[in-house]
Amino acid sequence: MATINENFLKLKAGYLFPEISRRIRTHKEKNPEAKIISLGIGDVTQPLPAAVISAMKKAVDDQAAEDTLHGYGPEQGYDFLINAIIENDYKARGVDLRPNEVFVSDGSKCDTGNIQEIFGTENVIAVIDPVYPVYVDTNVMAGRAGKATQQGTYEGIVYMPCTAENDFVPIVPDIKVDLIYLCFPNNPTGAVATTEQLKDWVLYAHENEAVILFDAAYESFITDADIPHSIYEIDGAKEVAIEFRSFSKTAGFTGVRCAFTVVPGQLKALTKDGRAVEVNPLWHRRHCTKFNGASYISQRGAAAVYTAEGKKQTKKIIDIYLSNAKLICDSLTKLGYDVYGGQNAPYIWLKTPDDISSWDFFDRLLTKANIVGTPGSGFGPSGEGYLRLSALAKPADVKEAMQRFAKIY
Amino acid sequence: MATINENFLKLKAGYLFPEISRRIRTHKEKNPEAKIISLGIGDVTQPLPAAVISAMKKAVDDQAAEDTLHGYGPEQGYDFLINAIIENDYKARGVDLRPNEVFVSDGSKCDTGNIQEIFGTENVIAVIDPVYPVYVDTNVMAGRAGKATQQGTYEGIVYMPCTAENDFVPIVPDIKVDLIYLCFPNNPTGAVATTEQLKDWVLYAHENEAVILFDAAYESFITDADIPHSIYEIDGAKEVAIEFRSFSKTAGFTGVRCAFTVVPGQLKALTKDGRAVEVNPLWHRRHCTKFNGASYISQRGAAAVYTAEGKKQTKKIIDIYLSNAKLICDSLTKLGYDVYGGQNAPYIWLKTPDDISSWDFFDRLLTKANIVGTPGSGFGPSGEGYLRLSALAKPADVKEAMQRFAKIY
Repeated sequence: MATINENFLKLKAGYLFPEISRRIRTHKEKNPEAKIISLGIGDVTQPLPAAVISAMKKAVDDQAAEDTLHGYGPEQGYDFLINAIIENDYKARGVDLRPNEVFVSDGSKCDTGNIQEIFGTENVIAVIDPVYPVYVDTNVMAGRAGKATQQGTYEGIVYMPCTAENDFVPIVPDIKVDLIYLCFPNNPTGAVATTEQLKDWVLYAHENEAVILFDAAYESFITDADIPHSIYEIDGAKEVAIEFRSFSKTAGFTGVRCAFTVVPGQLKALTKDGRAVEVNPLWHRRHCTKFNGASYISQRGAAAVYTAEGKKQTKKIIDIYLSNAKLICDSLTKLGYDVYGGQNAPYIWLKTPDDISSWDFFDRLLTKANIVGTPGSGFGPSGEGYLRLSALAKPADVKEAMQRFAKIY
Repeated sequence: MATINENFLKLKAGYLFPEISRRIRTHKEKNPEAKIISLGIGDVTQPLPAAVISAMKKAVDDQAAEDTLHGYGPEQGYDFLINAIIENDYKARGVDLRPNEVFVSDGSKCDTGNIQEIFGTENVIAVIDPVYPVYVDTNVMAGRAGKATQQGTYEGIVYMPCTAENDFVPIVPDIKVDLIYLCFPNNPTGAVATTEQLKDWVLYAHENEAVILFDAAYESFITDADIPHSIYEIDGAKEVAIEFRSFSKTAGFTGVRCAFTVVPGQLKALTKDGRAVEVNPLWHRRHCTKFNGASYISQRGAAAVYTAEGKKQTKKIIDIYLSNAKLICDSLTKLGYDVYGGQNAPYIWLKTPDDISSWDFFDRLLTKANIVGTPGSGFGPSGEGYLRLSALAKPADVKEAMQRFAKIY
């Protein structure tokens, strides 16, 4: 008799985005003329850099001729891309990596979701709250989360609150945890971690034989010169951290699919009887067994991001989104709102006025201004009282949205 | 203290292909002039159909303009592709499917590797032997395989031998198993299952509350009119089977990455206390949590396979490979070899002469004829005494290889 993985039954329904859709639908039925502006879902709106487009077209042409056809590539990614990543994203910032430490994939969602497979089910998971739901849900599926609570959390997971008081970067826990998901620049709060803060985390991981799973998907939005782009800029991080990067927000690859994960050779974890095992070969085995390489066309496109033209064009796109973010922050601050993030990240974390709930504020914005945000409470209990606004929208929409904010103020 | 998933330590080293590479390297060092022909790895050599190339170029162009940019798509795949799949691959063969039963992905390796996650670890796994290693290794990682044996199998897995006596299609087991991996047309033997044989499997699954995981990645190579292309052509299969399909071999997508999996709404599996649960929502949740959709460009390319031009061009490519297969079968039969497969599949399963071992025959072919095959024993104990030859090579190479076979005979 075939049985199911009953951990799946412990998952809460994917409440957040379906509920947002439902409320938008109801609003539209009542107000068919309403021109809704979405600052909700974090998807890109700018077309891809010309250098990427041209590289992908050439790659498609390669597939049209026998001599240039690219069939199965190396599961870990093509050297042309891995070398460009190492040179530009790491060596340029003083971090040396070997090619076998970089794993090209089709997305950071997949990588941050799959990474837990190579670790034992007995590990205690810690997440920062509010949290990208994938970190939690994939651990629920694997049986590490325990029972769901009334608050929408899980008994077996350690939640580290991100609040205005700690600038949305929690200090290290005073208990022992094993696998720590960090995301900086943060989705949803837009917060960044300083060198000093990351040093504390790396130290904690060393002292507790923990592993940090560092999601840096929004790294390209960092503007402050003293904010680390990679956790490996911190001494000793290679022994305790895995890093995730993506081309999705950097260069508009949400529909093209390309990302990568770094698993340093120095990183070790333990068997139950305390023997240290290199983690890189485990991820290599997982990656090569359950994945067959990212699309050749996507990889050619990703490599073009690192050309001189590609860098210039990519920066221009990021600047557009950062201008959006600045406009949102400035406009809302002027109106008296408390806003966070938006300086090194495409997300603005907006405190709801008058201490109303995330959902009440969501409704107010939707019905009074036809603006859609994402209720912070959907990302975890510490998100209550906040709304996430995405700066990845079209500039004209952001401008219009800010005018509407002013009107309803 | 972070601990590893110790099931990974039970995996045998990826012995087969690295060992093949090592022997080729040694041979080349001794014979630098040797022109080696590979009929080993099952990768495509024909360029992609023109209709696919043109659709992918248009898709790349779409990503270059704000109005046609495609960011995050539906995780399950775009309707334009799902509808084309349902219409052409299923409705045309009398099988009705609903759009939410089809899950577009980036590869059948991923899907056949990931599917076991939604089932409990207590399920007894059955595989046909020889076997595509992904089925076994992913269950080892999940802890369902038990200890490795001296023969290179796992104690906890039921191996069903495919031999010349059973035409390489085993009859149903006389014991109870829970999850059954079937692959027809088969990799590596090239065997196909008849309607009657599949009926037996579906009946077995019904009687034993088992689930069949049916890998039909080579379906497009079926030439015999009475061989089912889908397991759903068998009555009652929707209640007991998941089907995997791929564009990799059909239309040369090994480097482009697009495939799909069908999980019918009727399929149920049980909780430990015997409650029936629909499997489709479990896979939906897994797919949407750990995957972010196949590349928009790849999906547009895949949809073009179903256009009138795409069908014609795809058939032409398949015919080239099938001509290769026929040439291999005919030539080797004439030389007195026992050959199997190659009629509804791009693989030829060649009995080694004089009952020598797979590796001995591999060495003989490599050193005497500079031809590379894949030793059958690498796919499981019942593969011993066989060699897999791939017909996915270039026609000129196949022709040349057959001349060399004649010379060494």
